[in-house]
Amino acid sequence: MTTKKGLKIATIGGGSSYTPELIEGFINRYEELPVKEIYLVDIEEGKEKLDIVGNLAKRMVKKAGLDIDIHLTLDRREAIKDADFVTTQFRVGQLDARIRDEKIPLRYGSIGQETTGAGGFAKAQRTIPVILDICKDIEELSPNAWLINFTNPSGIVTEAVVKHSNVKVAGLCNVPIGMVNDSADMLGVTPDRVYIDFVGINHLLWGRKIYLDGKDITDNFIEEVAAGKSSTMKNIPDLDWDPDFIRSLGMFPCSYLRYYYLTDEMLKEEQESAKLEGTRGEVVKKIEHELFDLYKKPDLDIKPPQLAERGGAHYSDAACSLINSIYNDKKDIQIVNVKNNGAISDLPDNVVIEANSIVGFKDIKPINIGSIPTRIKGLIQVVKAYEELTIEAAVTGDYDTALQALSVHPLIPSVTVAKKILNDIIKENKEYLPQYK
Amino acid sequence: MTTKKGLKIATIGGGSSYTPELIEGFINRYEELPVKEIYLVDIEEGKEKLDIVGNLAKRMVKKAGLDIDIHLTLDRREAIKDADFVTTQFRVGQLDARIRDEKIPLRYGSIGQETTGAGGFAKAQRTIPVILDICKDIEELSPNAWLINFTNPSGIVTEAVVKHSNVKVAGLCNVPIGMVNDSADMLGVTPDRVYIDFVGINHLLWGRKIYLDGKDITDNFIEEVAAGKSSTMKNIPDLDWDPDFIRSLGMFPCSYLRYYYLTDEMLKEEQESAKLEGTRGEVVKKIEHELFDLYKKPDLDIKPPQLAERGGAHYSDAACSLINSIYNDKKDIQIVNVKNNGAISDLPDNVVIEANSIVGFKDIKPINIGSIPTRIKGLIQVVKAYEELTIEAAVTGDYDTALQALSVHPLIPSVTVAKKILNDIIKENKEYLPQYK
Amino acid sequence: MTTKKGLKIATIGGGSSYTPELIEGFINRYEELPVKEIYLVDIEEGKEKLDIVGNLAKRMVKKAGLDIDIHLTLDRREAIKDADFVTTQFRVGQLDARIRDEKIPLRYGSIGQETTGAGGFAKAQRTIPVILDICKDIEELSPNAWLINFTNPSGIVTEAVVKHSNVKVAGLCNVPIGMVNDSADMLGVTPDRVYIDFVGINHLLWGRKIYLDGKDITDNFIEEVAAGKSSTMKNIPDLDWDPDFIRSLGMFPCSYLRYYYLTDEMLKEEQESAKLEGTRGEVVKKIEHELFDLYKKPDLDIKPPQLAERGGAHYSDAACSLINSIYNDKKDIQIVNVKNNGAISDLPDNVVIEANSIVGFKDIKPINIGSIPTRIKGLIQVVKAYEELTIEAAVTGDYDTALQALSVHPLIPSVTVAKKILNDIIKENKEYLPQYK
Amino acid sequence: MTTKKGLKIATIGGGSSYTPELIEGFINRYEELPVKEIYLVDIEEGKEKLDIVGNLAKRMVKKAGLDIDIHLTLDRREAIKDADFVTTQFRVGQLDARIRDEKIPLRYGSIGQETTGAGGFAKAQRTIPVILDICKDIEELSPNAWLINFTNPSGIVTEAVVKHSNVKVAGLCNVPIGMVNDSADMLGVTPDRVYIDFVGINHLLWGRKIYLDGKDITDNFIEEVAAGKSSTMKNIPDLDWDPDFIRSLGMFPCSYLRYYYLTDEMLKEEQESAKLEGTRGEVVKKIEHELFDLYKKPDLDIKPPQLAERGGAHYSDAACSLINSIYNDKKDIQIVNVKNNGAISDLPDNVVIEANSIVGFKDIKPINIGSIPTRIKGLIQVVKAYEELTIEAAVTGDYDTALQALSVHPLIPSVTVAKKILNDIIKENKEYLPQYK
Repeated sequence: MTTKKGLKIATIGGGSSYTPELIEGFINRYEELPVKEIYLVDIEEGKEKLDIVGNLAKRMVKKAGLDIDIHLTLDRREAIKDADFVTTQFRVGQLDARIRDEKIPLRYGSIGQETTGAGGFAKAQRTIPVILDICKDIEELSPNAWLINFTNPSGIVTEAVVKHSNVKVAGLCNVPIGMVNDSADMLGVTPDRVYIDFVGINHLLWGRKIYLDGKDITDNFIEEVAAGKSSTMKNIPDLDWDPDFIRSLGMFPCSYLRYYYLTDEMLKEEQESAKLEGTRGEVVKKIEHELFDLYKKPDLDIKPPQLAERGGAHYSDAACSLINSIYNDKKDIQIVNVKNNGAISDLPDNVVIEANSIVGFKDIKPINIGSIPTRIKGLIQVVKAYEELTIEAAVTGDYDTALQALSVHPLIPSVTVAKKILNDIIKENKEYLPQYK
Repeated sequence: MTTKKGLKIATIGGGSSYTPELIEGFINRYEELPVKEIYLVDIEEGKEKLDIVGNLAKRMVKKAGLDIDIHLTLDRREAIKDADFVTTQFRVGQLDARIRDEKIPLRYGSIGQETTGAGGFAKAQRTIPVILDICKDIEELSPNAWLINFTNPSGIVTEAVVKHSNVKVAGLCNVPIGMVNDSADMLGVTPDRVYIDFVGINHLLWGRKIYLDGKDITDNFIEEVAAGKSSTMKNIPDLDWDPDFIRSLGMFPCSYLRYYYLTDEMLKEEQESAKLEGTRGEVVKKIEHELFDLYKKPDLDIKPPQLAERGGAHYSDAACSLINSIYNDKKDIQIVNVKNNGAISDLPDNVVIEANSIVGFKDIKPINIGSIPTRIKGLIQVVKAYEELTIEAAVTGDYDTALQALSVHPLIPSVTVAKKILNDIIKENKEYLPQYK
Repeated sequence: MTTKKGLKIATIGGGSSYTPELIEGFINRYEELPVKEIYLVDIEEGKEKLDIVGNLAKRMVKKAGLDIDIHLTLDRREAIKDADFVTTQFRVGQLDARIRDEKIPLRYGSIGQETTGAGGFAKAQRTIPVILDICKDIEELSPNAWLINFTNPSGIVTEAVVKHSNVKVAGLCNVPIGMVNDSADMLGVTPDRVYIDFVGINHLLWGRKIYLDGKDITDNFIEEVAAGKSSTMKNIPDLDWDPDFIRSLGMFPCSYLRYYYLTDEMLKEEQESAKLEGTRGEVVKKIEHELFDLYKKPDLDIKPPQLAERGGAHYSDAACSLINSIYNDKKDIQIVNVKNNGAISDLPDNVVIEANSIVGFKDIKPINIGSIPTRIKGLIQVVKAYEELTIEAAVTGDYDTALQALSVHPLIPSVTVAKKILNDIIKENKEYLPQYK
Repeated sequence: MTTKKGLKIATIGGGSSYTPELIEGFINRYEELPVKEIYLVDIEEGKEKLDIVGNLAKRMVKKAGLDIDIHLTLDRREAIKDADFVTTQFRVGQLDARIRDEKIPLRYGSIGQETTGAGGFAKAQRTIPVILDICKDIEELSPNAWLINFTNPSGIVTEAVVKHSNVKVAGLCNVPIGMVNDSADMLGVTPDRVYIDFVGINHLLWGRKIYLDGKDITDNFIEEVAAGKSSTMKNIPDLDWDPDFIRSLGMFPCSYLRYYYLTDEMLKEEQESAKLEGTRGEVVKKIEHELFDLYKKPDLDIKPPQLAERGGAHYSDAACSLINSIYNDKKDIQIVNVKNNGAISDLPDNVVIEANSIVGFKDIKPINIGSIPTRIKGLIQVVKAYEELTIEAAVTGDYDTALQALSVHPLIPSVTVAKKILNDIIKENKEYLPQYK
């Protein structure tokens, strides 16, 4: 970031259907965030999508009347060279791999989900080798660049970067932003008036306290959640929370916690949906198809409203917001996947947590949290242990570590099942898992 | 312990079928451990058993030709007054309560076990108020006495004492001794040649390293376990470990870990056994009946070999051994449930762990362990969080805390089930749970 | 703080010469911080000063044309009742006690200073019992009030409140603000463009990194400090830092660190100054006298510029700024003495540190710091241990703890000297140390 | 240690005057510790001493009638190859370097001592590069060997090995053994009846509790120390402890703590002694001369009683005792410098502490200590920070780190003095400090 004259952004996985939201985010912030060049990078298999979405991006910029150059390229190194920010939103193996990730665990009576449980494990195994390769490029070609990751499982992927590279990294997720927005809806106010004291890790997040205009309204808010007023993510079945349970918890759980707190019901729901309409990945595949048909239309020059249906809304906007705060030294609070470094006393220093963080002075630092409440501590710790093993397995390709990772996961009912799932994952992802010999 | 002239022992729950092992332990160690008086205490409902087992104890002492006075009493305070050691082996609600503890969870598809899972939770709720009452007596009547607890769930009960009283306490369990004996059998050697580097908490224990004559033989030993050579506790179904799993774990798991690693299979096994022969509690009830018939025989004046079948073998001998080391300042290593105080870095200071400890200088101190291996860390942490909530619930009678305790337990499949189980436990244990209003 | 209609402020030690700065601070912020009532409280001995400064305060408010009621009272409880904020700036034993605090250590060849070393110990012994009394009043009469303490030794006094009361407290000091201002002067910019990453505790503070407009300029800045460009507090002799030392330190030390890094030279300087012009307390006594003569003038209706010479500049303005951020939920960064709670991993959770903190959501939370750099870790830890013992001694009046507190302080050359100093402190402060019997 | 048939010992610095004690130790334990070969290694400059002491060693073995081969060699690698134990007792720069270490700090009014303060720093700078070289040989030539270090500063040197090599290491010191012996003398009993609960690091050690026959006698014992009954090491001036100080401390301080608690008096004493009879190093030089004259006598075939006057008594016997426990898997308690690994919660995991440890199962593990009492915590932490910087400086040769190491040491009165001392150390040790360029 040698000059304020104009930033270079490299977006790995630029052919993603999310790209229009990212472009819109840069357009909306252009006045304070002077982006000069955006490199959308993809791989050979994604060239068609890259062209479609890239041309839409060009039309969007043109319509906005801004001097931003959009480059479409298959040359990752060219894109990364001298970039100020690298964003990652790629998907190794495309949606077909996701669909396999969902189906394998379901086959053995275990939750089949993109990021949570064995599905997330498989995705991490495919993704981590690639992100670490990207990091090597960054270390060589743009060592001062920030990597803004929103490739899932975002917390695990970010932790792999923290542990195995020297790249400055921040991981993003749309869950916490979604919870703020959801709370604002429930309260009938704008999101900027709501502040949530978050505790946890990616996709395993609780709002410990809820504030409206700086006032602690947690108790009343919990009653609203108990009364079924909260909503859920697009991609997660909206099972009701038991009111007594929510009151005894006294915190606001994120949607993904349904997989842990309502395992049986969620599994049943997943099995039924899979039969009726296919897994979520299969559903998304159809949505994506329709989206790209839409993107192709030469007269489309804004982010189409249909994208909001896709499920990943707010991700890209969160990325633009974060980049803006880093660039302009805003010292504001954003919810980021960041190195723990003692912020949560009950987790190791070098793991990644999802925390309200101050973004400024060219750094991102979590606001100190201290000890985790006992009610949620054990679950965070056991899932974090699974994540640490998952990263180690992805980096080493060690079968034993991989088996232990799945064995300790709370959503996998036995080591017998863990072994079957692992064997299927390795077999069905062969081309994407070179580390497993 | 003002004098070496003769010790006073108070045994709460003296009418237990285990008592003959305890008496035998004192008899065998009489030369270095000069016990003068043993008070066997029980409650009104246990008077008949107390008389039977107490008279056997008297006959055993007489046969040994030793000057030990056996007192049978329903007056707990008389027994505790000026005691040097108080041992606890009582069972609130007798075996009928245990049987309920096993049946309630099974009703909802969750493991039904005396100490592990919801059954252990129920037992803790009944037991903790009583043990803390006993501690008040000790604080008043024999403040320098050591409390040697082997009432189950031993780790949880001991932790309640550590957190809520000033009594010097050590918790015992026969699992680690059993693992040493089992290892010795597998190796064809005597147990004194085997040393196991244990890590964990009560009933959630791993042998991290195995030594024979001071030599690390872990790798070969693990192969033996993988080959199915290890055996299991009397009261735990002997399902085989998956060899690949055991190799990937690289440690020697205690029998109780089958409930966590093989949840589905164990549940199925439990459900089938319950149908065929009743729950373990029901089986034990029969065994106990036969044992007491045996104990009644006036010519029986030794510990009958049939007691070994009962399942709790070694408990009482471990207690005598521990008392001996404390009394004689042996500075030897014993496996005790003891305050963590930083010995395991990844657990809070004031919880109880099961650790190789030095017994001497009027204290018991764990050998430092450091960090828990990631492969087992999360499971220990989540179960410990459950235990902390369980103790808090037992002391406060707070429904919300109780519900959270069960909700975080890995063996309970959902909060929906947790709530059903909790409501049944409270309802069916009404007379033993005055703290729940 | 039930209403935004108008705040009640209680200022204990209201007769202090600093009060005009506080009043000015409230006047300047009136638009966003609607203060309705200010109670200036003092004790009988301070009544004359209270009247003088109180009347000046009234003239200042009148001149500003604002609707703020200034109350002068000796009734602390009346002032505290229903207050929104309580600020403390009292001095037990007045300046005469301070002068004794400076002279006793000098008598035995040890640093004699208001807050650092044995002088600060003595001040803490006098102050802590009084502040804890005030806290009892707050707990009873205005339990939701924030206590903003700037009575010295500010960190120690704040920690006493954190450990021994339930009052919400923040401690302030002008040292960090002074360092930001000093840095800005050196850089020729306005203070708002400078950000310092502070690490340490009150009066033992380092700037680990210095940022200008969000850019890390630490290395160049350190060269400026090495070149002698930094300035010092009014009350601390301006000895030059050794350039090699500053470079090897690589951080920006606060002025008070001269007492630790240049002990011999500082002692010599103190001894010479004491001879020539009296101790700092004696100098301040003269300045105060002149200030109050000035305050008496009926036509003075602003904060007089001479107050800036007094040495404590910025304290009161920092208090107003903090109150403003709490009240308006600003979520901005302020440098506050706040409970550690794990923010610095190498210090206990329940001690107070001086840290960049987020002020908002009705709370003050330090930005996480992690581990302290080894170069400064030991000094912080040993002084914090002294502080913990000092607080314990002040609360219990235990002579042994007091002697240990002084014995571990790095500025006291031996336990022999520590004992002599302690005995003199207790003897010469008899009326203010009822806890020492 | 492939066979119990006969051990190979390599002693680096074999020409030391201490060697006869070591040989005696092996002779006395021969029955359970079958040593077959002892390689005494030294450097060219030490060849004469090596021959003298080596021949005495041979006569001792012969007189004992044992089959132990004594080899004298200048070839370190030959000695280390396949050794079971390597012991280190070398002194880089011989006694002349020690004398310089003592004189440089005294020149600037700072304690001049072999291991404590700036003298110890200088010794560490010379020693650490050599010990790490030895470790490289061990890693290559005898990777399963244990390194038993008693080269001073023993704790620092051991920590350097822990941090910068893979060699299994234990550090020894005669201070704790001396404290046990001293206590036994005071109590009029044999040392085996005394147990001290030690807390601290090498040469900064406190007895937290004292036990006689397993009974806590701390309070009475402290009164004896307060009454002046304890004695001091040969090499440390025997200044009396202030009785009030000792009572307020409530612990048994090691002799070296006089340098910290009585800095002024100790400095004065050192300055006077240096004038009258030379520094301790100069005194020792004379004693050594006399000892070697004695060792030369062909009819001497036992450890001469005069060696006890030398100051380092018990070191070598402690080494033999430790080797015996490791070899025979004794699982007994020995006081060893060992990796902390969380045993003391308030110090980093990877530093070395001096702790009661269990020696067995081919490992040495500290008994868990938990938190350090506040009264001694800060001093331990600040000296440990100095030690960490000292090791870092010795390994990197970084001047800044070296200057910071001396600046944080409590016995160096200012950074100005620190810089002067450091410059002199580097200048006067040029040939031994190749790392400082």
